[in-house]
Amino acid sequence: MNDTFLKACRAEPVPYTPVWLMRQAGRYMPQYQEVRRKVDFLTLCKSPELAAQVTLQPVEVLGVDAAILFSDILIPVEAMGMRLEFSEQQGPVLSPPVRGQAELEGLRVPEPSKDVPFVLESIRLLRQSLQVPLIGFSGAPFTLATYMVEGGGSKSFFYTKWMMFRQREVFLGLLQMLTETVCRYLRAQIEAGAQAVQLFDTWAGILGPQDYRTYALPYVKQVVRELKGLGVPIIYFLNGCAGLLEEMLQSGADVLSLDWRIDIAQAARSVGAEAVLQGNLDPCALLLPRQELSQRVQDILQGARAARGHVFNLGHGVLPQIPLEAVKHLVQEVHRLSRRS
Amino acid sequence: MNDTFLKACRAEPVPYTPVWLMRQAGRYMPQYQEVRRKVDFLTLCKSPELAAQVTLQPVEVLGVDAAILFSDILIPVEAMGMRLEFSEQQGPVLSPPVRGQAELEGLRVPEPSKDVPFVLESIRLLRQSLQVPLIGFSGAPFTLATYMVEGGGSKSFFYTKWMMFRQREVFLGLLQMLTETVCRYLRAQIEAGAQAVQLFDTWAGILGPQDYRTYALPYVKQVVRELKGLGVPIIYFLNGCAGLLEEMLQSGADVLSLDWRIDIAQAARSVGAEAVLQGNLDPCALLLPRQELSQRVQDILQGARAARGHVFNLGHGVLPQIPLEAVKHLVQEVHRLSRRS
Repeated sequence: MNDTFLKACRAEPVPYTPVWLMRQAGRYMPQYQEVRRKVDFLTLCKSPELAAQVTLQPVEVLGVDAAILFSDILIPVEAMGMRLEFSEQQGPVLSPPVRGQAELEGLRVPEPSKDVPFVLESIRLLRQSLQVPLIGFSGAPFTLATYMVEGGGSKSFFYTKWMMFRQREVFLGLLQMLTETVCRYLRAQIEAGAQAVQLFDTWAGILGPQDYRTYALPYVKQVVRELKGLGVPIIYFLNGCAGLLEEMLQSGADVLSLDWRIDIAQAARSVGAEAVLQGNLDPCALLLPRQELSQRVQDILQGARAARGHVFNLGHGVLPQIPLEAVKHLVQEVHRLSRRS
Repeated sequence: MNDTFLKACRAEPVPYTPVWLMRQAGRYMPQYQEVRRKVDFLTLCKSPELAAQVTLQPVEVLGVDAAILFSDILIPVEAMGMRLEFSEQQGPVLSPPVRGQAELEGLRVPEPSKDVPFVLESIRLLRQSLQVPLIGFSGAPFTLATYMVEGGGSKSFFYTKWMMFRQREVFLGLLQMLTETVCRYLRAQIEAGAQAVQLFDTWAGILGPQDYRTYALPYVKQVVRELKGLGVPIIYFLNGCAGLLEEMLQSGADVLSLDWRIDIAQAARSVGAEAVLQGNLDPCALLLPRQELSQRVQDILQGARAARGHVFNLGHGVLPQIPLEAVKHLVQEVHRLSRRS
């Protein structure tokens, strides 16, 4: 069992810097595309054997140091009672959008073992064959709230802000319900065998610091507090974290996962004494010629040295257009360049 | 003549903090919508009398301390030889997208007096009637390049990164041509009567610090250097600036305009000793109840005190959905709460 990733999350000494990639099981892999030719995205998420199969693919093909469960952050939202569809054009569509007390009252906190048993079954299946740690995950409360309020993705997040500023009580009620949902969901994943969990706050970076402290941070803190006793590392990814590092640290998460728009050396100096950092290569840097890509890997490894510990990752998910060979090269280079001899 | 805005840009003492708003002439104003019922957006940009009329509207209705020319950042790009259309669904569409040397060679550096005479004529008209300073503007080179490469707006900016990392020489050639275009364009605006200019770097915040220093900053510096001798303040707006403040300062601009995702007090401490700051209310905060909106205005005024000077603005443009009354209230509150008695 390769436990380098778990050790790094706990700031223990490691022989090299472990690496895994957000969205490492995905469309950039021909192996994944082959599975997807047979089933649509949501069916894949809900079929434990297939979900386990695509989760394993990058572990075998790339040699990453952790697996992340193949699923979608909106799975628990569907279980709360919203209708979820994926459109080629628009991405996820959730209906009806939550814009008031009436829609909120139509929702419930799901019971994972009954409402999303396929997630837990995928985890159990994976633990039987994996030789690296398995990461479970959930969207963070604020990020899930944006999808529910907007009815999917958004550019301006106008309705989210409208709820925050004009329907505050409803929005806070939604965040509280989401917090309970996320706590139960991640606890169930850990009980089923997840050895670490990552909270994805993909959209909290649209908030200024004051609103982040009101509408995102308290709920992340609640989740972290709830899960702290379960003995698995908690990773918190905040996309657009550059102006929110101090707040991010207050989350209490073991590992802070940075997007690519901040110098990791600067983050290490500012909050790295108190947390392990994860990140943060620009996902598009995988388009670079190999030598330049290696140089960027080196720069990130070097920059992260001032932190308590480091898990290498991208600053966001792997894009479908990225060549598989470049991703393989990345993983190799992280291992080669970080090895303590 | 109210010159409070120009004095604040120069860090001279002012009786109160001047305020203007990005996209202050726009759809949230019924007066603007009335003009737009008669002409489409591009025709409006190209009709000096109408453009001057909508530029004046917010000055009269809101009592802001500066006017900003009504135009679009893609006007000079159309003049470079691209086809520009505005679609209700997609926003701006530029064709054909610049993806290689061939498209680059089809473009030219426009001659403002011949290729965009309507912009200069709007400025001359406005100077005859305005009682506040007139701000000219342009997109910054990197931001204009993203539109040209993507063929419009984008979510992932994949093609821009692809050009940066796979077609570097072409991309640098494009940036250089844009820099010359922007220099000529802003110089012509200043010669026609613009009393300050703002460079909009709406999308440079998608870059990590290293790439920002390669693909955005050098070109902004060139523009600032070219215009420095002309005697008008140069404002640099960088959307997503939280991880790039030190770099932003190196631009040499007189005023640094911040988006809303950074605490202005923190920016004032970090770079405010050397530059006047502009900003940075969340545009959606205009949805707040009046008392809370006033509190946010107060917090920003307070936070900006550590800077050399302050021009109040939003952290991005006014949204169409914002009630006019809220915008009026904002302007009044900035004046009331900042007045030195």
